[in-house]
Amino acid sequence: METILRSARTEVTISPDNATVLIGERINPTGKKLLAASLVAGDMSRVRKLAESQIAEGAAVLDINVGAAGVDEVAMLPAAVQAVMEVTDVPLCIDSANAAALRAALEVYPGKALVNSVNGEEASLARVLPLVKEFGAAVIALTMDDDGIPTDADKRTAIGHKIIARAEALGIPREDVLIDCLALTVSADTSAALTTLESIRRVRAELGVNQTLGASNISFGLPDRDAINDVFLAMAIAAGVNAPIVNPGLSRKTILISDMLLGHDEFALNYVTYYREQVNKQA
Amino acid sequence: METILRSARTEVTISPDNATVLIGERINPTGKKLLAASLVAGDMSRVRKLAESQIAEGAAVLDINVGAAGVDEVAMLPAAVQAVMEVTDVPLCIDSANAAALRAALEVYPGKALVNSVNGEEASLARVLPLVKEFGAAVIALTMDDDGIPTDADKRTAIGHKIIARAEALGIPREDVLIDCLALTVSADTSAALTTLESIRRVRAELGVNQTLGASNISFGLPDRDAINDVFLAMAIAAGVNAPIVNPGLSRKTILISDMLLGHDEFALNYVTYYREQVNKQA
Repeated sequence: METILRSARTEVTISPDNATVLIGERINPTGKKLLAASLVAGDMSRVRKLAESQIAEGAAVLDINVGAAGVDEVAMLPAAVQAVMEVTDVPLCIDSANAAALRAALEVYPGKALVNSVNGEEASLARVLPLVKEFGAAVIALTMDDDGIPTDADKRTAIGHKIIARAEALGIPREDVLIDCLALTVSADTSAALTTLESIRRVRAELGVNQTLGASNISFGLPDRDAINDVFLAMAIAAGVNAPIVNPGLSRKTILISDMLLGHDEFALNYVTYYREQVNKQA
Repeated sequence: METILRSARTEVTISPDNATVLIGERINPTGKKLLAASLVAGDMSRVRKLAESQIAEGAAVLDINVGAAGVDEVAMLPAAVQAVMEVTDVPLCIDSANAAALRAALEVYPGKALVNSVNGEEASLARVLPLVKEFGAAVIALTMDDDGIPTDADKRTAIGHKIIARAEALGIPREDVLIDCLALTVSADTSAALTTLESIRRVRAELGVNQTLGASNISFGLPDRDAINDVFLAMAIAAGVNAPIVNPGLSRKTILISDMLLGHDEFALNYVTYYREQVNKQA
């Protein structure tokens, strides 16, 4: 099951047979006041810098989200996509809840984008899937619907089945749907991580599709969040996630080790190369 | 499925429903020249110190191994057990390939010990299981036999089935057998960790027994071994290991986070308590 994403000149293949693909999460103004202010002002210099730094840190795909108070997403999402394409040539993940902004960004993007995201809500399916089909994109499917985010793995898996069926009915092949089983906050619900991991295993076994995950919600409200995120990410990758949305500067080491342990790094070449680069940086 | 270990006055229950039990590995002269020399001389001061430090670091059971060139194991294994009992009251894991040394140590131990180990070799089954039965102990069962360590999960799981059947035939209940699916070196065999993880999942599903693991072989020959061991340990605990043999000073944090994510630390109380202790130590 291969999901192929393309930029103007390169492609990235997401597959259970390959090493994990890191989708860089940092071009997103949530919690970043300076980035939000620069997007309100239409200044793309920070966006370009975040693109370059994440590529250097190992991102193979970049998520582009410009949603913040005062930002005109319909104007700024395509502007950010173009700004990032000026400095890098990796495939992009176009991230917005605004369908007009998604369309505007897809119109300026020359490759096969990943759209972030559709979910099981009827309004979302009706709004996003036709766009994905029209532009020949791939799409991230969140396992939530009009009743919210289910607290059990049965229902999250069932939403995955439903979204795939609706995508296929529109002519979007299932390999172009990446399921996100959603990480909630373990400090609020002791079974939050278990439910996500069980959903990931079920989606892998029943649907076989590639999977993304934004892992960092899991540690909200707890100390040393990075350590918790890393342990959870290792477990999620072992369960079936192969294209997580992460801060690559924080998570790359854990991901490289996970890949090595799961048979996706022959002779540990990627891990040892990374390790040497880090040692050289510090020297 | 509960494995209950006892010292003179305390007990520890290993169960899939409980938090992970850390078995401290450090009382073992392999690679520790000073400890080996002190054991040759019959000096137990280092053994006592390693017992105390590991309890402080979170070990709930201590492994006692005195095997080194020049050490009289039949004399020193019971001496080490008694030395450790002078300074701590946790249950002990008595670790030797020498049946006479195991017997001598079991004779001086007043509780229900964990014997480390039996394996699927006919000679091992014949030598160790009757001792385990005689002393009412529990036992670690390594998934290897007269043909060595199988490279596939089917055969490792089958050895687990065989040892459990042989134990039960002698009147040792299966809850007193902890399976060790064995970690080999991933730098020598790309599928080493995958085979171990798959074996752990199979043993959990088919036999339901508690499981130990000495995880650190996995990283042999690679840089930053502690980081690799931690990621592997997280995956192994998610797969079914619940009483790993570890250096508690290195692995406790990953284990506490794993327990929290797997629903064994309500309100994250154990993790947050540990975190505060570490912050206070550094302050």
